Amino acid sequence: MERTEIETLGEFGLIEHLTKNFETKNASTIQSVGDDAAVIDHFGKQTVISTDLLVEGIHFDLMYMPLKHLGYKSVVVNVSDIYAMNATPTQITMSIALSNKISLEAIDEFYEGVYAACEKYGVDLVGGDTTSSQKGFIISVTAIGEVTPDKFVKRSTAQQGDLICVSGFLGGAFLGLTLMEREKRIYLENPQIQPDLEGEDYIVGRLLKPEARKDIVEFLATNEITPTSMMDVSDGLSSEVLHISKQSNLGCRLYEEKIPIHPSAKQAAFKFGLDATICALSGGEDYELIFTVKQEDYDKITLSEEISVIGYMAELEEGCKIITKGGSTHNIEAQGWKAF
Amino acid sequence: MERTEIETLGEFGLIEHLTKNFETKNASTIQSVGDDAAVIDHFGKQTVISTDLLVEGIHFDLMYMPLKHLGYKSVVVNVSDIYAMNATPTQITMSIALSNKISLEAIDEFYEGVYAACEKYGVDLVGGDTTSSQKGFIISVTAIGEVTPDKFVKRSTAQQGDLICVSGFLGGAFLGLTLMEREKRIYLENPQIQPDLEGEDYIVGRLLKPEARKDIVEFLATNEITPTSMMDVSDGLSSEVLHISKQSNLGCRLYEEKIPIHPSAKQAAFKFGLDATICALSGGEDYELIFTVKQEDYDKITLSEEISVIGYMAELEEGCKIITKGGSTHNIEAQGWKAF
Repeated sequence: MERTEIETLGEFGLIEHLTKNFETKNASTIQSVGDDAAVIDHFGKQTVISTDLLVEGIHFDLMYMPLKHLGYKSVVVNVSDIYAMNATPTQITMSIALSNKISLEAIDEFYEGVYAACEKYGVDLVGGDTTSSQKGFIISVTAIGEVTPDKFVKRSTAQQGDLICVSGFLGGAFLGLTLMEREKRIYLENPQIQPDLEGEDYIVGRLLKPEARKDIVEFLATNEITPTSMMDVSDGLSSEVLHISKQSNLGCRLYEEKIPIHPSAKQAAFKFGLDATICALSGGEDYELIFTVKQEDYDKITLSEEISVIGYMAELEEGCKIITKGGSTHNIEAQGWKAF
Repeated sequence: MERTEIETLGEFGLIEHLTKNFETKNASTIQSVGDDAAVIDHFGKQTVISTDLLVEGIHFDLMYMPLKHLGYKSVVVNVSDIYAMNATPTQITMSIALSNKISLEAIDEFYEGVYAACEKYGVDLVGGDTTSSQKGFIISVTAIGEVTPDKFVKRSTAQQGDLICVSGFLGGAFLGLTLMEREKRIYLENPQIQPDLEGEDYIVGRLLKPEARKDIVEFLATNEITPTSMMDVSDGLSSEVLHISKQSNLGCRLYEEKIPIHPSAKQAAFKFGLDATICALSGGEDYELIFTVKQEDYDKITLSEEISVIGYMAELEEGCKIITKGGSTHNIEAQGWKAF
């Protein structure tokens, strides 16, 4: 029998492979696989649904991820997908599988974080499943949200000439991960040496306690800006901007100098000998929003200090390129975080 | 630091422990944790949501579970929870985590089963997540369904004197599991010996390809029978009837002679030296429906050959008891399938 290794397709290739022949049948299914979340119609209001599976050793390392933070982050990454649809999260379900190394006290800590995030984002925990695992801690979260009919924003609807915007700062979470992995290696080699996180609160916080950009979705609503496309930055700016371009059948131009990078992240990148722009392009887990708006919305967008305009959507033939600070032009390549 | 082992609480104890202090806040959250599925209001129509996490080595054994069957069953166990709310499943999300021992061809087989079940039950696969795992195959399914407002049926609303009904036959899946575990042991001891499944199609089918009782929910609707409580039989009859009794604040009486057991299951039980009634009471995974109806619905219930009346709801003080064929009375104890 033939055997094809999964890594030859990659995550997105696998999803495409698995879903290409499936047609939806229910009239209530408005938007299916291929975006941050699915959209379901419920006679007047639309429901948005998104799900994530987090696996110990793949998505998190309990050596430096406190369980409370892990619980919080598990909720955040899911509600972030709901906001990325321009919707409001309302409920989540949370399933966990536990190995016997995890005590009840540890689970309580985890749920403290879950409930803190539910509180912060105004969502109800309405169900789930708890079971055991042979190895490692496994978390599956599904988030439900609601949106005024046809106000949800997909990835595939950017128009040529639209401005590409991102919220907050990029690259910080990746630098936090780099730091933690370095400290872990040092600790494993010599457990006497205490971790040196001095002055690195910012990047560590970006990794361990990300927030979903509820405020940005509210800002857009208040200022009557409807993004023409939107998604959250979980795999890195390159990967996401390529998703929007590909799904909208367009090219794009990014300006390196416009990519927002926090001063503390720049400093950390310098210390680690990394290029801060590469960290923003290829490092995942920032959970900022990337979206496109019509050019006439530019003045309104500048009302928010939390939003940066970093480029524009170009014709398909122009490709997806970044213009560096030095003025040279490079193709954007997806080197985002890979699950396989 | 204190350390409490999870198994001291058990699955239901753990769920109660984790959710007892959490209050829901969204007006749209009609029914939260504690039933087969949660219920969400969407301006005129209500949405039902349920989720399950299936872990290799805990919930299934790839040595005798063909991947296509596993895909099919993963969907069935979730839509079964939606039917158990008296609702109609409409969408599912499916997340999987894969170790590198699983090839693309294997995943295709799995999805063949998933899509076959989606087809059979008329649900759309609208999303999910695919990632890798360090060990084992992990499946997380969330099902969404819809129900006419306030027509959903909970576990907690049985009334004293109501008749306890079950669909189909019980105990078969457990006997199938017993057979497969026996054959696996024999094979591991001597790989030359081919499995002996001769004449055991029924119990093997009950384990490997269960169906959700869509037909029963349709029968109830057609005959205008609204169950006073309902759930699906996933952990065994004892466990489920105790859930309904406890959550409805009542006792119950079951009659051993009324518990429906298929002739092939009786035969298999005899062959394995097991008590068929114990298999029905304590063996899980039959995915039949257990529900209660008012006494005046008795005549309508008898219109279906697929439904057995097996007892009635008693006063709380009378406890939960089973009357054996010999006429003696025993307390019902939950010995259902345990995840911990």
